[in-house]
Amino acid sequence: MPIVIVEMWEGRTIEQKKKLVKGITSVITDMGVRPEGVTILIKDNPKHNWARGGKLASETSP
Amino acid sequence: MPIVIVEMWEGRTIEQKKKLVKGITSVITDMGVRPEGVTILIKDNPKHNWARGGKLASETSP
Amino acid sequence: MPIVIVEMWEGRTIEQKKKLVKGITSVITDMGVRPEGVTILIKDNPKHNWARGGKLASETSP
Amino acid sequence: MPIVIVEMWEGRTIEQKKKLVKGITSVITDMGVRPEGVTILIKDNPKHNWARGGKLASETSP
Amino acid sequence: MPIVIVEMWEGRTIEQKKKLVKGITSVITDMGVRPEGVTILIKDNPKHNWARGGKLASETSP
Amino acid sequence: MPIVIVEMWEGRTIEQKKKLVKGITSVITDMGVRPEGVTILIKDNPKHNWARGGKLASETSP
Repeated sequence: MPIVIVEMWEGRTIEQKKKLVKGITSVITDMGVRPEGVTILIKDNPKHNWARGGKLASETSP
Repeated sequence: MPIVIVEMWEGRTIEQKKKLVKGITSVITDMGVRPEGVTILIKDNPKHNWARGGKLASETSP
Repeated sequence: MPIVIVEMWEGRTIEQKKKLVKGITSVITDMGVRPEGVTILIKDNPKHNWARGGKLASETSP
Repeated sequence: MPIVIVEMWEGRTIEQKKKLVKGITSVITDMGVRPEGVTILIKDNPKHNWARGGKLASETSP
Repeated sequence: MPIVIVEMWEGRTIEQKKKLVKGITSVITDMGVRPEGVTILIKDNPKHNWARGGKLASETSP
Repeated sequence: MPIVIVEMWEGRTIEQKKKLVKGITSVITDMGVRPEGVTILIKDNPKHNWARGGKLASETSP
């Protein structure tokens, strides 16, 4: 039943997302949870909506 | 003052969302909260950002 | 498959939470989702961790 | 290390977001956290996905 | 820079959490992110605050 | 109407939280939002539920 939310920068491909959810699900099923019990939400964030050190990532990592 | 966040697949119509927020608000006001105190955020998620059982919903429920 | 997160003040009873999740689930199944597809997380927040208008609720609604 | 998530209506400019993250980061560094330790995510929500008092903001604040 | 939030039932041990964060971090660094860039938050939820199918998990999985 | 969620380590005092919410609210009202429209939720996280670089903060920052 765990729910995993992944906040990251937009731009990942579907293939990368497939690997990501397969990998995270595998880590959690190793704890004794069945695969169907694992839900993952990926959140694509534009760099102009993500800040670190007081600056938007669109400025610091364009 | 409750805040309700609804994570779901994208694709619902405005009419469906109107019913959804009216219904959820009604459930919460039944607990003794006034309607203006209820805030609801709907999050539309693409199926390729939602996974269950280690697979993206865009693969399993296209 | 929707996931609903309810942020509210701590202090609700189990009976109130039972009614809450039953009611919200019913609103969502009316949209054509089966009950088992609806997950709800209730988050109990102490009033000293909730603010409105720049003031903690523990100050304004003790 | 704090993470701040700001849920708001879409429509703010990059300049406004720059000021927002600079200001929030400053408030948190005043608590003794170094700037690089502060991450902020801005979430732009369409008004038809935001409700108060049982009505979508697209209806009440078009 | 990804941020991962894991919502699960309370009751996991520190050893299980260590494995969990090590595993998830490894999955994400495989995407080309350095380990220090990965932040993970684990949220322990009591079963009486988690519902599926309109019923609290404290009722269905006591 | 913005909602701000602050995820941080547990241990801050009420006085620190008062300053935090006052400061963040002030930053947002500078954007033209009235103070009553700003809601802030503070989430206190134990260090054993927070990880960076694949390690729990309870290990690296005890």
